[in-house]
Amino acid sequence: MGSKYPRSVRGCLPLWTLMLEAVFILIFFFFTNYDSSSQKIMGTHQAVFRDVTIMAALGLGFLNSSLWRYGWSSVAFNLFMLALGVQWAVLLDGWLDQLSFGKVVIELSSIQQATMSAMSVLISAGAVMGKTNLVQMVLMVLMEVTAFGTLRMINKQYLNEDDHESMMQIHVFAAYFGLAASWCLSRPLPKGVKKKEKRTTIPSLFAMLGTLFLWIFWPSFNSALLDIPYQKKNAVCNTYYALAASTVTAISASALAHPQGKINMTHIHNAVLAGGVAVGASCHLISSLWIAMVLGLVAGLISIGGAKCLPVCFNRVLGIHDTCGVHYTFGLPGLLGGITYLAIFFAAWSKNAMLGFLVLIGTGTVTLSVAMGLVSGLLTGLLLNLKIWRAPHVAKYFDDQAFWEFPHLAVGF
Amino acid sequence: MGSKYPRSVRGCLPLWTLMLEAVFILIFFFFTNYDSSSQKIMGTHQAVFRDVTIMAALGLGFLNSSLWRYGWSSVAFNLFMLALGVQWAVLLDGWLDQLSFGKVVIELSSIQQATMSAMSVLISAGAVMGKTNLVQMVLMVLMEVTAFGTLRMINKQYLNEDDHESMMQIHVFAAYFGLAASWCLSRPLPKGVKKKEKRTTIPSLFAMLGTLFLWIFWPSFNSALLDIPYQKKNAVCNTYYALAASTVTAISASALAHPQGKINMTHIHNAVLAGGVAVGASCHLISSLWIAMVLGLVAGLISIGGAKCLPVCFNRVLGIHDTCGVHYTFGLPGLLGGITYLAIFFAAWSKNAMLGFLVLIGTGTVTLSVAMGLVSGLLTGLLLNLKIWRAPHVAKYFDDQAFWEFPHLAVGF
Amino acid sequence: MGSKYPRSVRGCLPLWTLMLEAVFILIFFFFTNYDSSSQKIMGTHQAVFRDVTIMAALGLGFLNSSLWRYGWSSVAFNLFMLALGVQWAVLLDGWLDQLSFGKVVIELSSIQQATMSAMSVLISAGAVMGKTNLVQMVLMVLMEVTAFGTLRMINKQYLNEDDHESMMQIHVFAAYFGLAASWCLSRPLPKGVKKKEKRTTIPSLFAMLGTLFLWIFWPSFNSALLDIPYQKKNAVCNTYYALAASTVTAISASALAHPQGKINMTHIHNAVLAGGVAVGASCHLISSLWIAMVLGLVAGLISIGGAKCLPVCFNRVLGIHDTCGVHYTFGLPGLLGGITYLAIFFAAWSKNAMLGFLVLIGTGTVTLSVAMGLVSGLLTGLLLNLKIWRAPHVAKYFDDQAFWEFPHLAVGF
Repeated sequence: MGSKYPRSVRGCLPLWTLMLEAVFILIFFFFTNYDSSSQKIMGTHQAVFRDVTIMAALGLGFLNSSLWRYGWSSVAFNLFMLALGVQWAVLLDGWLDQLSFGKVVIELSSIQQATMSAMSVLISAGAVMGKTNLVQMVLMVLMEVTAFGTLRMINKQYLNEDDHESMMQIHVFAAYFGLAASWCLSRPLPKGVKKKEKRTTIPSLFAMLGTLFLWIFWPSFNSALLDIPYQKKNAVCNTYYALAASTVTAISASALAHPQGKINMTHIHNAVLAGGVAVGASCHLISSLWIAMVLGLVAGLISIGGAKCLPVCFNRVLGIHDTCGVHYTFGLPGLLGGITYLAIFFAAWSKNAMLGFLVLIGTGTVTLSVAMGLVSGLLTGLLLNLKIWRAPHVAKYFDDQAFWEFPHLAVGF
Repeated sequence: MGSKYPRSVRGCLPLWTLMLEAVFILIFFFFTNYDSSSQKIMGTHQAVFRDVTIMAALGLGFLNSSLWRYGWSSVAFNLFMLALGVQWAVLLDGWLDQLSFGKVVIELSSIQQATMSAMSVLISAGAVMGKTNLVQMVLMVLMEVTAFGTLRMINKQYLNEDDHESMMQIHVFAAYFGLAASWCLSRPLPKGVKKKEKRTTIPSLFAMLGTLFLWIFWPSFNSALLDIPYQKKNAVCNTYYALAASTVTAISASALAHPQGKINMTHIHNAVLAGGVAVGASCHLISSLWIAMVLGLVAGLISIGGAKCLPVCFNRVLGIHDTCGVHYTFGLPGLLGGITYLAIFFAAWSKNAMLGFLVLIGTGTVTLSVAMGLVSGLLTGLLLNLKIWRAPHVAKYFDDQAFWEFPHLAVGF
Repeated sequence: MGSKYPRSVRGCLPLWTLMLEAVFILIFFFFTNYDSSSQKIMGTHQAVFRDVTIMAALGLGFLNSSLWRYGWSSVAFNLFMLALGVQWAVLLDGWLDQLSFGKVVIELSSIQQATMSAMSVLISAGAVMGKTNLVQMVLMVLMEVTAFGTLRMINKQYLNEDDHESMMQIHVFAAYFGLAASWCLSRPLPKGVKKKEKRTTIPSLFAMLGTLFLWIFWPSFNSALLDIPYQKKNAVCNTYYALAASTVTAISASALAHPQGKINMTHIHNAVLAGGVAVGASCHLISSLWIAMVLGLVAGLISIGGAKCLPVCFNRVLGIHDTCGVHYTFGLPGLLGGITYLAIFFAAWSKNAMLGFLVLIGTGTVTLSVAMGLVSGLLTGLLLNLKIWRAPHVAKYFDDQAFWEFPHLAVGF
């Protein structure tokens, strides 16, 4: 306890974040405006905004809370990153939309999109969780929101995608960003630290709570940026059935993958959501429920397969440590979603002369997301490795006591 | 540990469920359609759908999670059954609606009704919880959704009930289905197993979370299938006040029933909801708040009374083991609701010449629900008793370790 | 265990509450009416109502659940008080609105306002939590709902405030009511009891869950009683950004305030909400996001400052015991909100001849809320001190076992 770590946070964190908050306030003072002429009644809009906030604060907050001694940090740091990310994203999105540093008009819809953009950080955080301090998190928020905003801007400006399609790159982008950042931060874990990665009963129930929130509100997330009524309806129905199929598949496949037929709770937390990720990009275009269900089934299998194989093959070989499995939760199903999107495009436009061009663009989008995620993640990871942030010592990984004042020093609960 | 049980699940479960999932996909491929001409804006509709899903996945999932060592299973299996039930119910409802095996047109409203139908399984599961494996659960989902769909069809086709009224039979039907199935599965519990039925502090808080979700969203559930604005409003207000009255009553009556005036948490989990169940069938017809409050008061008393007496008198005599008390949570208040519905009918139509006929129909509805629940529950229970499902050995009842891979074998938390 | 306390509750509680419930039903029978002519479609309205109920039952219920051995009571008693308060508030509000004991017409909107009024009790309860029994809670509900209803009536009738503005006095009123009541009930705590005030990991996660629910739905709360679309939009956006700013500030300031830079979880539970409280009264009038963010920043600092200083300076000197810190959660940020409201008024009307008069009224509103809270709180506290309620003995403070039947007498979890 004590050691030299805690003092460093005290020296760094409040200084940095309060300054940053002051800078934000100044920028908002000079560069933002309300549009007070709008008389739109906003019942539905507010509901969608609320749903997205629930997913970000409750869903992603608790999803990663299953580590034995890292529950407080995962939930509270998640809220901290969300609060910071939303402030930065709304500015950045405004500037990138108009491609200049002019006044940004704040609408409820822009705050909603900012919340969704900030979710990219919350997803990536699952890969580096427990290995960084709050100052590093602040830096990661700024870097990732900027990178994701740029990716969305490129998609919209140069690849002619709409808000929905460019947002749905979030899973792939965030997963590979997190993996790349985690690769830079990975160190061999001492034995005592490995023990802290264990999951136990009650924290797993909290994680299940997060999973359920995500599961329930995923249809809202996938349909949040769609405007045409029947597309919105299709998005909701397809997402729901894809989730249902991936839930059934994930639980069965998890039992199949264990030599004694036992289900792995950590896999379930993540794999039941695979259907929602996979169906994301194309949920409004899929014209039959069975396609969504096939996608959900395949996504569930891939996710469980990834959960079994990736830690052994991929992570160990490359030396990546992916704390909460974002690779198989968001990365692989997201890639599947990208391929599906391409296939649907292919089927729908197969009579089109410009097909080659369109497929090229489609492939480009997915590749771009992965590449952008990897490059910006690497860059961020290298920055986070600098000594000035005073990262927690590896012996203090996955431990709430490095950050939190405990009323007593009892172990765990 | 180990023994011969786990292997059986591995052999059975993935095979069965993945095959079933494939069959579902095939049926959806051949028999379903989207109606893509609809241009309805669906803000409110989506909100109601979301509320119902929250009740099913979060509310009923956590309601039964208070068993000391069965928290993981109760929450995860609940989601599994919901995901499976929704897929089957939407097909079945479509076919039963048109009384033929034609194409089913999928709407958001049909998925919402399917979710509500699938909730019948989640309610019944409370009675057999901890005594079945997942394969048996799959069978129960298929059987119960079919039985409940048939009951609703009979009510609508032959007894002239609307969607709302036929859906509100869910509580009575599901409770007696669960009890009948549980009767077939009941075996004398060894002493070590009885210990596992204990409730402890933290799991009880999770169960309270489930209760609160149900409490909050019950007005949405009761008004979900009503279309006329003032009926919808009355349904919401009546349900809310019935719940409020039953909450006050349940906590007081629980203190009254204990010799030292102590409140029983397990009773509270269930009895505060009794008002919502009792007011279900007639919530749109009740024209004064005080009637709803009287109903809530009586339902709370009956529920606490049932919780104290049923385990001693009824269950022990008949040899039924009702793990989570569905009889006094849903069964008895549901019967009270049926009687109230009849009484309101009686009062409103007392000048009507056809009164006798109408009361006959009303009585028939309730009786039919109970009878259908008992018969189909018995049938399902007998099926579940077959050796081929390799039910868990009685020594493994109420134990997560029979199904889940634990990171370590520490007891409990 | 045993002692003379438990019997007293059994003698008192059921008698009182069931009688009270019967009286309520009688009053509703004679004095309320539905307006069944209304044909308003109520999608949005129902959503707002639901959000407010979530805040009351889930948010405030779990917010105070972090005490080591008082989790059951805090959640269940919260629901009990809500259920009771809503029944009384809807009547009282109706009578005070028409200033006579005539028939009250029940609308969904009146039930929603009743829920919000009842939240005043749930806020105050944080200060006396663990030191009262349920009978005392019943009395407190009746007293506080009456006092708050009167305050709102005065504000509306004599100070020309609208529903929103008079409701936003809730934080200041409830905080000082709770403090005054707690002052009357405060006794020196024996050492064994102090230990029970500790917070531990898992209960703190439940409290975090409550905090998150409040955080997410606070924009709904602040905009619930606003009708003009652009005001509603401004209220939602301002509240969200004030919360974001106070979250960032609170976490940083908590680290700054600890000598080793460690964050205090109990402070976080409360301080991240300070922004929402502070922005309450003026959220619809603030015309730029940066003002809301400044408010959030200042509120976060004040709240953390209060959390550090108040227990040492204020509470110890005055002998107040504020179990869950309502003073720095709701009281101080609420005062800041009152001052802000005044300042905005001042800025907007600075050319107005009647300025002096308006500022006088504004100051009067805040002073009135504090004074009314203190006086009615004192009165209630004195009443609660009477022997006839058989308050729990100080050795049984903060202990679930005084009220709940435990399946076993194991310590804690």
